[in-house]
Amino acid sequence: MDHLDSLIHLLSRLPGIGKKSATRMAYYLLQSDEEFTRNLGEHIVSLKEKISRCRRCGNYSEHELCPVCADTRRDAGLICVVEQPQDIAVLEASHEYTGYYHVLHGVLAPLDGVGPSELNIQSLIGRVGQGSVRELIIATNPTVEGDTTALYLKKLVEHLGVTVSRLALGLPVGGDLEYADRLTLARSLKGRTAL
Amino acid sequence: MDHLDSLIHLLSRLPGIGKKSATRMAYYLLQSDEEFTRNLGEHIVSLKEKISRCRRCGNYSEHELCPVCADTRRDAGLICVVEQPQDIAVLEASHEYTGYYHVLHGVLAPLDGVGPSELNIQSLIGRVGQGSVRELIIATNPTVEGDTTALYLKKLVEHLGVTVSRLALGLPVGGDLEYADRLTLARSLKGRTAL
Repeated sequence: MDHLDSLIHLLSRLPGIGKKSATRMAYYLLQSDEEFTRNLGEHIVSLKEKISRCRRCGNYSEHELCPVCADTRRDAGLICVVEQPQDIAVLEASHEYTGYYHVLHGVLAPLDGVGPSELNIQSLIGRVGQGSVRELIIATNPTVEGDTTALYLKKLVEHLGVTVSRLALGLPVGGDLEYADRLTLARSLKGRTAL
Repeated sequence: MDHLDSLIHLLSRLPGIGKKSATRMAYYLLQSDEEFTRNLGEHIVSLKEKISRCRRCGNYSEHELCPVCADTRRDAGLICVVEQPQDIAVLEASHEYTGYYHVLHGVLAPLDGVGPSELNIQSLIGRVGQGSVRELIIATNPTVEGDTTALYLKKLVEHLGVTVSRLALGLPVGGDLEYADRLTLARSLKGRTAL
């Protein structure tokens, strides 16, 4: 059973998948039709060949430019900076944003050896330097590293005459004051808006 | 993003995996090292070539005989009948059973069109008919279909002079009377054992 065991071992390395789920998945694959199993396997094998980083923003893409960068109808004055490509999908799903994106592929984390040169920052400066950008919306996660990265980027671009903003912090919609943590509540008070 | 989307779609067909987990897994694969991704994909592609049914018991195996059937030190007088190959792993983990197994690959379910000929029953009769088997332990699930299948198998083999038994039903170890369902409790009373 070496092949099955090593498949289970590999599957259990996926995020959120423990030994039990991995076992269930492996047996499911064995029992499902040949075409599905082969198709899934081949998709995984060719994943990295097929998909690489968008030349402009760093998003994952099958083409040289990702679908967002290839869309010329968007607002070229806005660039939203995110940590990971998957953040773009979340922002796109809100249908609230019409500008372009830039993916850092991480955040500054000196303790983990991630400095500015490890991130996709150089090309961001290049994009902002071209002059058509009026606002940089920094949408890194509201964590210590995300905040540090946001401040670092602000310093880098402020001499270029571009507005730098950060996503608002506050209570989640549909949330409950009772369950809000102290820090979120403090930011929510500080950022209160006129009714 | 067609390739990524179809990978997410394929992953979400796995048991217990919804759209969100599938997306997380797909991005994880994109971000992890080339070797892991390729290795996992190739394992899935070659799964069905590498693993087939054990000639004797129907368990999944890389060889003609599965590891259990190939082990000649086990008790040839006992055959434990299970629904699925994964049930063998569970029983083996209990370290309580030293006989051989037989995998039905399903249970009788006339409404779903599963009759005796769809199951791995013929070869079970052959094994029992060889004469060295003294007991058949039927370990199908304690469901209507599992019980029906157990009764059907009993009828099939009783003229061969073999004892047919069924796994005990009762409270799970560490369980709580308060949370036991009525049927389990009834079976548990009926099957009470002397202290």
